[in-house]
Amino acid sequence: MTHFNFQPIGTITSCFKEKFGIPRQSGLIPEARATLDILPPYNRPEAFRELAEYSHIWLTFVFHANIRENWKPTVRPPRLGGNQRVGVFASRSPFRPNPIGLSVVRLEQLDIGHGGIRLHLSGIDLLDGTPVLDIKPYLPYTDAIPDASAGYAPDPPGTPQVLTFEHQAEEVLNKLDELESTQLKKLIRQILEQDPRPGYRQGQPEKRCYGMRLFDYDIRWEVEQSGIRVTELVPFSTTCKSS
Amino acid sequence: MTHFNFQPIGTITSCFKEKFGIPRQSGLIPEARATLDILPPYNRPEAFRELAEYSHIWLTFVFHANIRENWKPTVRPPRLGGNQRVGVFASRSPFRPNPIGLSVVRLEQLDIGHGGIRLHLSGIDLLDGTPVLDIKPYLPYTDAIPDASAGYAPDPPGTPQVLTFEHQAEEVLNKLDELESTQLKKLIRQILEQDPRPGYRQGQPEKRCYGMRLFDYDIRWEVEQSGIRVTELVPFSTTCKSS
Repeated sequence: MTHFNFQPIGTITSCFKEKFGIPRQSGLIPEARATLDILPPYNRPEAFRELAEYSHIWLTFVFHANIRENWKPTVRPPRLGGNQRVGVFASRSPFRPNPIGLSVVRLEQLDIGHGGIRLHLSGIDLLDGTPVLDIKPYLPYTDAIPDASAGYAPDPPGTPQVLTFEHQAEEVLNKLDELESTQLKKLIRQILEQDPRPGYRQGQPEKRCYGMRLFDYDIRWEVEQSGIRVTELVPFSTTCKSS
Repeated sequence: MTHFNFQPIGTITSCFKEKFGIPRQSGLIPEARATLDILPPYNRPEAFRELAEYSHIWLTFVFHANIRENWKPTVRPPRLGGNQRVGVFASRSPFRPNPIGLSVVRLEQLDIGHGGIRLHLSGIDLLDGTPVLDIKPYLPYTDAIPDASAGYAPDPPGTPQVLTFEHQAEEVLNKLDELESTQLKKLIRQILEQDPRPGYRQGQPEKRCYGMRLFDYDIRWEVEQSGIRVTELVPFSTTCKSS
């Protein structure tokens, strides 16, 4: 059978160090940032000429943490509570016959320097280490179809929440410089308002502590009736593994 | 170096039998139709469950007619008249390090029958025989960014034109049934209003006959001051090769 062989043109360095907590689509968490470092021989400045004119770009990438020998014809999307099956081609699930991902992200900055070529991105939904196969400019005249009808996921998930930081978390944040602290708080808020817990728990309070790795922190939180409480920000080096 | 290996999940049968005349992006020619036949082992009805709920889908495909051993860091987009170079990653050119294409198309119908699985598509920009690697639903909440800023190609190409069919062309069209004839006329109009000639000629009349293969016809036309004149529709079997 025909095969096609592709080589990564670059690698993602992302705030998302593990799969849990990654937003289900790009654009949902504007504060989620990543860099894309272009690999040789593709790190030619001419190959990026005019790219900075575009506010958004498409990344075609490999779901490198989800490569399996076998594929299944149906998946259980988290948006449906994880207990209803839809066809894999009617989903954006990472578990697909060809584990190719597609995300539109904001191009914040294009750095072409002596050290190489680096793209600064935001609104990402990419795991750290993601291999990127292609970059294309986003063309609104062909790519933007606001009135396209969608199936089970017509609206973006996520609702504003009352978010409180406990003493330990506030202390860690206060040790950072002001910009870093503001950005990290904003990022945590945007992620938790998406409620990364499994679908059947979404919106429900529960007596359980969740944790996810973000940059070099293990972020821990609980979902209560009154809102979300961030209990701890533990530097990752001092923990074994987030839950 | 890392490599990733992908297998086609289906193959396109398109009205566009050669590269000349294919619109530069999807969606520009609503009347351009294709079918996508799913290959085994991917032709499992469950894999397409709920897909019919979506009006539009993304196709990730291989530019199979443009595979080259070498890649060039810059390309000359037809929109810029073909004489200005931009970076390959700032373009949607088929000549790219990994020849992966991306098109959003309208899903007209999903046929699941004894004979296999066939998707009926419109608004396509795909060459006949294109191998498809993945199908994903179009999600307007994440994919539609109407206010994204674009570089050199912010607006769709194409302007309404006065289009006339000469006697021979009218005769061929009259032999088709009414629906076929109306659809083919509409398709020809939409393609020619995009002006598929090389960029530096765009909008300019010239004393030259152009031809392109559409379905099983060789369509011939001339661009005049007063509009576009379709001179002939020659059944392809009776010609050697369109110019």
